[in-house]
Amino acid sequence: MDEASVKALTFDVFGTVVDWRSSLIREGEALARAKGITHVDWAAFADAWRGLYQPMLERVRSGERPWTKLDDLHRQSLDRLLGDFRIGGLSEEEVDHLNRAWHRLDPWPDAVAGLTRLKVRYILATLSNGNVALIVNMAKRAGLPWDAVLGAEVAQRYKPQPEAYLRTAELLGLKPAECLMVAAHSGDLVAAAGCGFRTAFVPRPTEHGPRQATATKPERAFDVTAADFVDLARQLGC
Amino acid sequence: MDEASVKALTFDVFGTVVDWRSSLIREGEALARAKGITHVDWAAFADAWRGLYQPMLERVRSGERPWTKLDDLHRQSLDRLLGDFRIGGLSEEEVDHLNRAWHRLDPWPDAVAGLTRLKVRYILATLSNGNVALIVNMAKRAGLPWDAVLGAEVAQRYKPQPEAYLRTAELLGLKPAECLMVAAHSGDLVAAAGCGFRTAFVPRPTEHGPRQATATKPERAFDVTAADFVDLARQLGC
Repeated sequence: MDEASVKALTFDVFGTVVDWRSSLIREGEALARAKGITHVDWAAFADAWRGLYQPMLERVRSGERPWTKLDDLHRQSLDRLLGDFRIGGLSEEEVDHLNRAWHRLDPWPDAVAGLTRLKVRYILATLSNGNVALIVNMAKRAGLPWDAVLGAEVAQRYKPQPEAYLRTAELLGLKPAECLMVAAHSGDLVAAAGCGFRTAFVPRPTEHGPRQATATKPERAFDVTAADFVDLARQLGC
Repeated sequence: MDEASVKALTFDVFGTVVDWRSSLIREGEALARAKGITHVDWAAFADAWRGLYQPMLERVRSGERPWTKLDDLHRQSLDRLLGDFRIGGLSEEEVDHLNRAWHRLDPWPDAVAGLTRLKVRYILATLSNGNVALIVNMAKRAGLPWDAVLGAEVAQRYKPQPEAYLRTAELLGLKPAECLMVAAHSGDLVAAAGCGFRTAFVPRPTEHGPRQATATKPERAFDVTAADFVDLARQLGC
């Protein structure tokens, strides 16, 4: 890869920048303490919530339902899971607060330090399926120094549909080959590469918990493979 | 105005955050030195370029032409002005560089300091007619700490059309009344207020040059009137 030709780094967020699973568990446990809920396994709850993510997105991608932002898809999943896990007695405000746990996800320990170094040389944009408000609120809380929040909502298409990647590059005024997609998920990078993006794989071996068995290695060769965001900054000369 | 209800500040950019006129003169004079151009009054050139701005936008707003991003409108105006001002002998690369002078506008002296203070408490989003790449590149060069770059291009509508304001609030996940529009131009604020936004007027008495006679005072009462961005931060308790 010709590093000098890369102008922007575009980031997957859930799993790649932030640790959604630990954060959702933390939020669930805080709610449980506040409400005296003792019967819920919040790790199982977090996995179930994330497990409904791709099926929900697929209904939008397939055209079965019109464009719906991720906050609203999360809420529909949450309403179902509150029943499945027999969690009752929450006010609308409490359910909305729990749904916005996705706005309060914590970054991986290397994320802010790596991004801060990368930001000196590159435009840093999100290319997430998260809606703009979710990503902006998350960044504000966590100190993630994005130059632009783009991706699915401004394209009205969910990854891995090509429009999500191509619209992001277009809004940045860049050719796809001037954008380096950074993700912990091979499928995301394969889709980005199909649109002409450069690709960087950063493994997140505990995204799915301490006993995660799969998806910590790249499924094929990408332009860059880095141990974490600080290593990515080092490899890109930042 | 109930300050606690405001979650985001949305900013007009040209004239309000950056001094387009002095910056375009600087860019023109740099080009003139490099190319040995001696017959051009670059202040007149800057005023003429900006003078074509509203007529160009109006053709898009009226539907006479389809959505066209501001970089492309600027370029069409520039091509015309290069003829009007008898500026010849520029390569395509040189013309493109001059067109991107709009990506290299300098902020008013108080802008970065004020925004940096405001950012601690509020979401800071651009609500400009400038396209995303223009605003992102400007911010990168000038150190403008935006949380989100929104406005005309993501709405596909130019201010003062309501959709530009409403789409920006929607993408931030906020009600219009939770957004405070900041501008040096009464018309922009009147349009924002019409959409339910709060309004803050910041005069920029030399936007149109040292002999500017008009538009330095608010044309009507707005929620806030501040001397500059540092004063705005002070008034908002930052």
